[in-house]
Amino acid sequence: MKLSARNILEGRVIAINKGQTTAHVRIEVAPNVVLTASITNDAVDDLALREGETASAVIKASDVMIGKQD
Amino acid sequence: MKLSARNILEGRVIAINKGQTTAHVRIEVAPNVVLTASITNDAVDDLALREGETASAVIKASDVMIGKQD
Amino acid sequence: MKLSARNILEGRVIAINKGQTTAHVRIEVAPNVVLTASITNDAVDDLALREGETASAVIKASDVMIGKQD
Amino acid sequence: MKLSARNILEGRVIAINKGQTTAHVRIEVAPNVVLTASITNDAVDDLALREGETASAVIKASDVMIGKQD
Amino acid sequence: MKLSARNILEGRVIAINKGQTTAHVRIEVAPNVVLTASITNDAVDDLALREGETASAVIKASDVMIGKQD
Amino acid sequence: MKLSARNILEGRVIAINKGQTTAHVRIEVAPNVVLTASITNDAVDDLALREGETASAVIKASDVMIGKQD
Repeated sequence: MKLSARNILEGRVIAINKGQTTAHVRIEVAPNVVLTASITNDAVDDLALREGETASAVIKASDVMIGKQD
Repeated sequence: MKLSARNILEGRVIAINKGQTTAHVRIEVAPNVVLTASITNDAVDDLALREGETASAVIKASDVMIGKQD
Repeated sequence: MKLSARNILEGRVIAINKGQTTAHVRIEVAPNVVLTASITNDAVDDLALREGETASAVIKASDVMIGKQD
Repeated sequence: MKLSARNILEGRVIAINKGQTTAHVRIEVAPNVVLTASITNDAVDDLALREGETASAVIKASDVMIGKQD
Repeated sequence: MKLSARNILEGRVIAINKGQTTAHVRIEVAPNVVLTASITNDAVDDLALREGETASAVIKASDVMIGKQD
Repeated sequence: MKLSARNILEGRVIAINKGQTTAHVRIEVAPNVVLTASITNDAVDDLALREGETASAVIKASDVMIGKQD
Protein backbone atom coordinates (compact mmCIF):
# COMPACT_ATOMS: atom_id res chain seq x y z
CA MET A 1 0.00 0.00 0.00
CA LYS A 2 1.21 3.48 -0.93
CA LEU A 3 0.47 6.08 1.76
CA SER A 4 -0.42 9.77 1.85
CA ALA A 5 1.87 10.19 4.88
CA ARG A 6 4.69 12.54 3.91
CA ASN A 7 7.12 10.86 6.28
CA ILE A 8 8.09 7.21 5.78
CA LEU A 9 11.56 6.64 7.22
CA GLU A 10 13.08 3.19 6.87
CA GLY A 11 15.45 1.94 9.54
CA ARG A 12 16.31 -0.89 11.90
CA VAL A 13 14.24 -1.86 14.95
CA ILE A 14 16.62 -1.46 17.89
CA ALA A 15 14.22 -1.90 20.82
CA ILE A 16 10.70 -3.15 21.59
CA ASN A 17 9.32 -2.48 25.08
CA LYS A 18 5.84 -3.88 25.74
CA GLY A 19 3.52 -2.60 28.44
CA GLN A 20 0.10 -4.05 29.26
CA THR A 21 -1.64 -2.70 26.13
CA THR A 22 0.87 -0.27 24.62
CA ALA A 23 4.42 -0.89 23.34
CA HIS A 24 7.29 1.47 22.60
CA VAL A 25 9.32 0.63 19.51
CA ARG A 26 12.58 2.36 18.62
CA ILE A 27 13.76 2.55 15.00
CA GLU A 28 17.19 3.85 13.97
CA VAL A 29 16.60 5.65 10.65
CA ALA A 30 20.19 6.92 10.28
CA PRO A 31 23.31 6.54 12.43
CA ASN A 32 22.31 7.96 15.85
CA VAL A 33 18.95 9.19 14.54
CA VAL A 34 16.31 7.21 16.39
CA LEU A 35 12.52 7.49 16.30
CA THR A 36 10.32 6.11 19.10
CA ALA A 37 6.82 4.91 18.25
CA SER A 38 4.09 4.17 20.76
CA ILE A 39 1.87 1.49 19.21
CA THR A 40 -0.50 -1.19 20.50
CA ASN A 41 0.85 -4.56 21.62
CA ASP A 42 -1.55 -6.07 19.09
CA ALA A 43 0.25 -4.19 16.33
CA VAL A 44 3.62 -5.53 17.47
CA ASP A 45 2.21 -9.06 17.32
CA ASP A 46 0.41 -8.59 13.98
CA LEU A 47 3.58 -7.25 12.35
CA ALA A 48 5.63 -9.99 14.08
CA LEU A 49 8.04 -7.14 14.83
CA ARG A 50 11.45 -8.21 16.09
CA GLU A 51 14.58 -6.31 17.11
CA GLY A 52 17.19 -6.16 14.38
CA GLU A 53 14.85 -6.25 11.44
CA THR A 54 14.02 -3.50 8.96
CA ALA A 55 10.88 -1.41 9.46
CA SER A 56 9.66 2.10 8.75
CA ALA A 57 8.47 4.94 10.94
CA VAL A 58 5.37 6.49 9.34
CA ILE A 59 4.35 10.02 10.40
CA LYS A 60 1.71 12.38 9.06
CA ALA A 61 3.05 15.87 8.27
CA SER A 62 0.38 17.42 10.51
CA ASP A 63 1.86 15.54 13.50
CA VAL A 64 5.31 17.11 13.13
CA MET A 65 6.13 20.32 15.02
CA ILE A 66 9.14 22.52 14.47
CA GLY A 67 11.45 23.70 17.25
CA LYS A 68 14.22 26.26 17.00
CA GLN A 69 16.91 27.17 19.53
CA ASP A 70 16.42 30.60 21.06
CA MET B 1 12.11 24.29 27.41
CA LYS B 2 12.66 20.54 27.78
CA LEU B 3 9.91 18.47 26.18
CA SER B 4 8.17 15.15 26.90
CA ALA B 5 8.18 14.38 23.17
CA ARG B 6 10.32 11.29 22.57
CA ASN B 7 11.36 12.48 19.13
CA ILE B 8 13.36 15.69 18.71
CA LEU B 9 15.44 15.45 15.54
CA GLU B 10 17.73 18.32 14.71
CA GLY B 11 18.46 19.14 11.09
CA ARG B 12 18.56 21.81 8.42
CA VAL B 13 15.48 23.54 6.97
CA ILE B 14 15.62 22.77 3.23
CA ALA B 15 12.20 24.06 2.14
CA ILE B 16 9.33 26.25 3.34
CA ASN B 17 6.13 26.27 1.29
CA LYS B 18 3.40 28.58 2.57
CA GLY B 19 -0.29 28.17 1.72
CA GLN B 20 -3.07 30.52 2.82
CA THR B 21 -3.05 29.45 6.50
CA THR B 22 -0.86 26.31 6.55
CA ALA B 23 2.81 25.87 5.57
CA HIS B 24 4.87 22.79 4.78
CA VAL B 25 8.41 22.81 6.13
CA ARG B 26 11.03 20.21 5.20
CA ILE B 27 13.92 19.43 7.53
CA GLU B 28 16.86 17.20 6.60
CA VAL B 29 17.76 15.36 9.82
CA ALA B 30 20.47 13.17 8.26
CA PRO B 31 21.84 12.89 4.71
CA ASN B 32 18.78 12.07 2.55
CA VAL B 33 16.53 11.66 5.60
CA VAL B 34 13.94 14.40 5.36
CA LEU B 35 10.92 15.12 7.57
CA THR B 36 7.98 17.24 6.37
CA ALA B 37 6.01 19.25 8.92
CA SER B 38 2.66 20.89 8.31
CA ILE B 39 2.47 23.92 10.60
CA THR B 40 0.59 27.22 10.63
CA ASN B 41 1.92 30.20 8.67
CA ASP B 42 1.83 32.08 11.97
CA ALA B 43 4.29 29.57 13.43
CA VAL B 44 6.67 30.06 10.48
CA ASP B 45 6.56 33.81 11.12
CA ASP B 46 6.89 33.56 14.91
CA LEU B 47 9.94 31.30 14.61
CA ALA B 48 11.31 33.54 11.81
CA LEU B 49 12.03 30.23 10.08
CA ARG B 50 14.32 30.46 7.05
CA GLU B 51 15.73 27.92 4.62
CA GLY B 52 19.26 26.85 5.45
CA GLU B 53 19.08 27.32 9.18
CA THR B 54 19.09 24.69 11.92
CA ALA B 55 15.78 23.54 13.41
CA SER B 56 14.29 20.41 14.97
CA ALA B 57 11.38 18.19 14.05
CA VAL B 58 9.43 17.38 17.22
CA ILE B 59 7.11 14.35 17.19
CA LYS B 60 5.15 12.66 19.98
CA ALA B 61 5.73 8.88 20.16
CA SER B 62 1.97 8.28 19.93
CA ASP B 63 1.97 9.94 16.48
CA VAL B 64 4.47 7.51 14.99
CA MET B 65 3.23 4.36 13.24
CA ILE B 66 5.34 1.40 12.19
CA GLY B 67 5.30 -0.11 8.70
CA LYS B 68 6.96 -3.33 7.57
CA GLN B 69 7.43 -4.66 4.06
CA ASP B 70 5.28 -7.74 3.33
CA MET C 1 3.81 -2.33 3.49
CA LYS C 2 1.97 -3.75 6.50
CA LEU C 3 1.08 -1.09 9.08
CA SER C 4 0.81 -0.92 12.85
CA ALA C 5 -2.29 1.27 12.48
CA ARG C 6 -5.28 -0.58 13.94
CA ASN C 7 -7.70 1.06 11.51
CA ILE C 8 -7.36 0.48 7.78
CA LEU C 9 -10.76 0.86 6.15
CA GLU C 10 -11.04 0.25 2.43
CA GLY C 11 -13.60 2.17 0.42
CA ARG C 12 -14.27 4.31 -2.62
CA VAL C 13 -12.99 7.88 -3.06
CA ILE C 14 -16.15 9.98 -3.50
CA ALA C 15 -14.68 13.50 -3.33
CA ILE C 16 -11.35 15.33 -3.51
CA ASN C 17 -11.29 19.02 -2.63
CA LYS C 18 -7.92 20.74 -2.97
CA GLY C 19 -6.96 23.95 -1.17
CA GLN C 20 -3.68 25.80 -1.58
CA THR C 21 -1.57 23.24 0.35
CA THR C 22 -4.13 20.94 1.99
CA ALA C 23 -6.79 18.72 0.41
CA HIS C 24 -9.88 17.05 1.85
CA VAL C 25 -10.59 13.55 0.58
CA ARG C 26 -13.80 11.66 1.30
CA ILE C 27 -13.88 7.85 1.27
CA GLU C 28 -17.07 5.80 1.56
CA VAL C 29 -16.08 2.72 3.58
CA ALA C 30 -19.58 1.24 3.76
CA PRO C 31 -22.95 2.39 2.38
CA ASN C 32 -23.48 5.88 3.89
CA VAL C 33 -20.39 5.56 6.12
CA VAL C 34 -17.95 8.21 4.92
CA LEU C 35 -14.55 9.21 6.31
CA THR C 36 -12.96 12.59 5.54
CA ALA C 37 -9.18 12.86 5.44
CA SER C 38 -7.21 16.09 5.44
CA ILE C 39 -3.95 15.40 3.59
CA THR C 40 -1.40 17.46 1.66
CA ASN C 41 -1.98 18.30 -2.00
CA ASP C 42 1.40 16.66 -2.62
CA ALA C 43 0.03 13.40 -1.24
CA VAL C 44 -3.00 13.57 -3.56
CA ASP C 45 -0.62 14.02 -6.50
CA ASP C 46 1.83 11.32 -5.40
CA LEU C 47 -0.96 8.78 -4.97
CA ALA C 48 -2.54 9.97 -8.26
CA LEU C 49 -5.77 9.85 -6.27
CA ARG C 50 -8.95 10.10 -8.35
CA GLU C 51 -12.64 10.06 -7.49
CA GLY C 52 -14.27 6.69 -8.02
CA GLU C 53 -11.24 4.57 -7.29
CA THR C 54 -10.56 2.29 -4.33
CA ALA C 55 -8.46 3.58 -1.44
CA SER C 56 -8.17 3.10 2.32
CA ALA C 57 -8.56 5.40 5.29
CA VAL C 58 -5.72 4.70 7.73
CA ILE C 59 -6.13 5.82 11.35
CA LYS C 60 -4.02 5.21 14.46
CA ALA C 61 -6.03 3.90 17.42
CA SER C 62 -4.71 6.74 19.59
CA ASP C 63 -6.39 9.25 17.24
CA VAL C 64 -9.87 7.82 17.74
CA MET C 65 -12.09 9.22 20.49
CA ILE C 66 -15.34 7.69 21.72
CA GLY C 67 -18.59 9.62 22.06
CA LYS C 68 -21.79 8.42 23.69
CA GLN C 69 -25.25 10.01 23.65
CA ASP C 70 -26.27 11.45 27.02
CA MET D 1 -22.34 19.09 22.01
CA LYS D 2 -21.87 19.49 18.25
CA LEU D 3 -18.27 18.86 17.14
CA SER D 4 -15.96 20.22 14.45
CA ALA D 5 -14.66 16.69 13.87
CA ARG D 6 -15.50 15.64 10.31
CA ASN D 7 -15.78 11.98 11.29
CA ILE D 8 -18.41 10.85 13.78
CA LEU D 9 -19.32 7.23 13.07
CA GLU D 10 -21.99 5.63 15.19
CA GLY D 11 -21.79 1.91 15.90
CA ARG D 12 -21.90 -0.81 18.52
CA VAL D 13 -19.20 -1.37 21.13
CA ILE D 14 -18.00 -4.95 20.51
CA ALA D 15 -14.94 -5.07 22.79
CA ILE D 16 -13.32 -3.18 25.68
CA ASN D 17 -9.80 -4.21 26.72
CA LYS D 18 -8.37 -2.30 29.66
CA GLY D 19 -4.65 -2.00 30.40
CA GLN D 20 -3.15 -0.26 33.41
CA THR D 21 -3.92 3.31 32.22
CA THR D 22 -5.01 2.86 28.59
CA ALA D 23 -7.92 0.89 27.14
CA HIS D 24 -8.68 -0.32 23.62
CA VAL D 25 -12.29 -0.06 22.55
CA ARG D 26 -13.65 -1.60 19.35
CA ILE D 27 -16.74 -0.17 17.65
CA GLU D 28 -18.48 -1.82 14.69
CA VAL D 29 -19.71 1.09 12.54
CA ALA D 30 -21.08 -1.09 9.71
CA PRO D 31 -21.20 -4.86 9.18
CA ASN D 32 -17.55 -5.99 9.38
CA VAL D 33 -16.27 -2.40 9.52
CA VAL D 34 -14.65 -1.99 12.93
CA LEU D 35 -12.76 0.96 14.41
CA THR D 36 -10.36 0.57 17.34
CA ALA D 37 -9.90 3.48 19.75
CA SER D 38 -7.15 3.80 22.32
CA ILE D 39 -8.54 5.89 25.17
CA THR D 40 -7.81 6.29 28.89
CA ASN D 41 -9.31 3.88 31.42
CA ASP D 42 -10.74 6.97 33.11
CA ALA D 43 -12.67 7.76 29.93
CA VAL D 44 -14.12 4.24 29.81
CA ASP D 45 -15.30 4.68 33.40
CA ASP D 46 -16.63 8.23 32.92
CA LEU D 47 -18.66 7.15 29.88
CA ALA D 48 -19.74 3.97 31.73
CA LEU D 49 -18.93 2.28 28.42
CA ARG D 50 -20.18 -1.30 28.08
CA GLU D 51 -19.99 -3.90 25.33
CA GLY D 52 -23.14 -4.11 23.25
CA GLU D 53 -24.19 -0.51 23.60
CA THR D 54 -24.25 2.24 20.98
CA ALA D 55 -21.35 4.69 20.80
CA SER D 56 -19.54 6.77 18.19
CA ALA D 57 -15.97 6.86 16.95
CA VAL D 58 -14.90 10.51 16.63
CA ILE D 59 -11.90 11.32 14.41
CA LYS D 60 -10.42 14.63 13.26
CA ALA D 61 -9.90 14.81 9.47
CA SER D 62 -6.24 15.72 10.01
CA ASP D 63 -5.72 12.34 11.75
CA VAL D 64 -6.85 10.31 8.73
CA MET D 65 -4.29 9.15 6.17
CA ILE D 66 -5.04 7.68 2.78
CA GLY D 67 -3.53 4.43 1.48
CA LYS D 68 -3.78 3.03 -2.04
CA GLN D 69 -2.79 -0.39 -3.32
CA ASP D 70 0.28 -0.29 -5.60
CA MET E 1 -22.78 13.58 23.19
CA LYS E 2 -20.42 12.77 26.06
CA LEU E 3 -16.81 12.34 24.92
CA SER E 4 -13.84 10.19 25.96
CA ALA E 5 -11.55 13.21 25.42
CA ARG E 6 -9.99 14.13 28.75
CA ASN E 7 -9.79 17.81 27.83
CA ILE E 8 -12.96 19.79 27.13
CA LEU E 9 -12.33 23.46 27.94
CA GLU E 10 -15.20 25.88 27.54
CA GLY E 11 -14.47 29.46 26.55
CA ARG E 12 -15.30 32.32 24.21
CA VAL E 13 -14.46 32.36 20.49
CA ILE E 14 -12.24 35.43 20.06
CA ALA E 15 -11.06 34.93 16.46
CA ILE E 16 -11.88 32.92 13.33
CA ASN E 17 -9.42 33.08 10.43
CA LYS E 18 -10.43 31.11 7.34
CA GLY E 19 -7.98 29.91 4.69
CA GLN E 20 -8.93 28.10 1.49
CA THR E 21 -9.81 24.78 3.20
CA THR E 22 -8.53 25.18 6.78
CA ALA E 23 -9.52 27.73 9.45
CA HIS E 24 -7.83 28.80 12.67
CA VAL E 25 -10.15 29.41 15.59
CA ARG E 26 -9.04 30.98 18.88
CA ILE E 27 -10.91 30.28 22.11
CA GLU E 28 -10.21 32.08 25.39
CA VAL E 29 -10.73 29.44 28.09
CA ALA E 30 -9.66 31.65 31.01
CA PRO E 31 -8.47 35.29 31.20
CA ASN E 32 -5.41 35.42 28.92
CA VAL E 33 -5.42 31.64 28.38
CA VAL E 34 -6.14 31.11 24.69
CA LEU E 35 -6.26 27.89 22.66
CA THR E 36 -5.89 27.88 18.86
CA ALA E 37 -7.63 25.15 16.87
CA SER E 38 -6.97 24.34 13.24
CA ILE E 39 -10.21 22.92 11.81
CA THR E 40 -11.80 22.64 8.37
CA ASN E 41 -13.76 25.54 6.92
CA ASP E 42 -16.65 23.09 6.57
CA ALA E 43 -16.59 22.58 10.34
CA VAL E 44 -16.76 26.34 10.94
CA ASP E 45 -19.80 26.51 8.67
CA ASP E 46 -21.51 23.41 10.11
CA LEU E 47 -21.15 24.73 13.66
CA ALA E 48 -22.19 28.23 12.49
CA LEU E 49 -19.27 29.37 14.62
CA ARG E 50 -19.13 33.11 15.31
CA GLU E 51 -16.77 35.33 17.26
CA GLY E 52 -18.04 36.19 20.72
CA GLU E 53 -20.01 33.04 21.31
CA THR E 54 -19.32 30.19 23.73
CA ALA E 55 -17.57 27.06 22.47
CA SER E 56 -15.23 24.38 23.78
CA ALA E 57 -11.75 23.26 22.83
CA VAL E 58 -11.66 19.45 22.79
CA ILE E 59 -8.28 17.71 23.02
CA LYS E 60 -7.34 14.03 23.42
CA ALA E 61 -4.87 13.41 26.28
CA SER E 62 -2.52 11.63 23.86
CA ASP E 63 -2.18 14.88 21.87
CA VAL E 64 -0.87 16.88 24.84
CA MET E 65 2.88 17.10 25.43
CA ILE E 66 4.57 18.45 28.54
CA GLY E 67 7.32 21.06 28.52
CA LYS E 68 9.44 22.19 31.43
CA GLN E 69 11.84 25.11 31.68
CA ASP E 70 15.50 24.06 31.84
CA MET F 1 13.77 25.83 22.22
CA LYS F 2 11.01 27.90 20.62
CA LEU F 3 8.17 25.78 19.20
CA SER F 4 5.81 26.01 16.24
CA ALA F 5 3.01 24.69 18.46
CA ARG F 6 0.32 27.36 18.77
CA ASN F 7 -0.66 26.22 22.25
CA ILE F 8 1.84 26.39 25.11
CA LEU F 9 -0.04 26.79 28.38
CA GLU F 10 1.96 27.14 31.55
CA GLY F 11 0.55 25.80 34.80
CA ARG F 12 1.16 23.67 37.87
CA VAL F 13 1.48 19.86 37.81
CA ILE F 14 -1.32 18.66 40.10
CA ALA F 15 -1.17 14.88 39.43
CA ILE F 16 1.08 12.24 37.89
CA ASN F 17 -0.35 8.74 37.43
CA LYS F 18 2.05 6.18 35.96
CA GLY F 19 0.96 2.99 34.20
CA GLN F 20 3.29 0.31 32.85
CA THR F 21 4.58 2.38 29.88
CA THR F 22 2.24 5.39 29.77
CA ALA F 23 1.59 8.09 32.37
CA HIS F 24 -1.20 10.63 32.78
CA VAL F 25 -0.14 14.07 33.91
CA ARG F 26 -2.58 16.80 34.95
CA ILE F 27 -1.64 20.47 34.71
CA GLU F 28 -3.76 23.32 36.09
CA VAL F 29 -3.30 26.18 33.60
CA ALA F 30 -5.77 28.55 35.29
CA PRO F 31 -7.97 28.20 38.38
CA ASN F 32 -10.13 25.10 37.72
CA VAL F 33 -8.84 24.79 34.13
CA VAL F 34 -6.95 21.50 33.99
CA LEU F 35 -5.31 19.76 31.03
CA THR F 36 -4.52 16.03 31.06
CA ALA F 37 -1.55 14.76 29.05
CA SER F 38 -0.83 11.15 28.23
CA ILE F 39 2.94 10.80 27.88
CA THR F 40 5.49 7.99 28.23
CA ASN F 41 6.85 7.04 31.65
CA ASP F 42 10.29 7.68 30.17
CA ALA F 43 9.29 11.29 29.52
CA VAL F 44 8.14 11.73 33.13
CA ASP F 45 11.53 10.45 34.29
CA ASP F 46 13.58 12.47 31.76
CA LEU F 47 11.81 15.69 32.78
CA ALA F 48 12.07 14.69 36.47
CA LEU F 49 8.46 15.82 36.62
CA ARG F 50 7.03 16.25 40.12
CA GLU F 51 3.66 17.31 41.48
CA GLY F 52 3.55 20.95 42.51
CA GLU F 53 6.09 22.26 40.07
CA THR F 54 5.57 24.50 37.05
CA ALA F 55 5.27 22.93 33.59
CA SER F 56 3.56 23.64 30.29
CA ALA F 57 0.99 21.76 28.23
CA VAL F 58 2.04 21.90 24.57
CA ILE F 59 -0.59 21.21 21.91
CA LYS F 60 -0.49 21.50 18.12
CA ALA F 61 -3.39 23.54 16.67
CA SER F 62 -4.30 20.64 14.37
CA ASP F 63 -4.98 18.47 17.44
CA VAL F 64 -7.62 20.81 18.86
CA MET F 65 -11.27 20.26 17.94
CA ILE F 66 -14.12 22.67 18.60
CA GLY F 67 -17.38 21.72 20.28
CA LYS F 68 -20.52 23.82 20.62
CA GLN F 69 -23.61 23.21 22.70
CA ASP F 70 -26.69 22.35 20.60
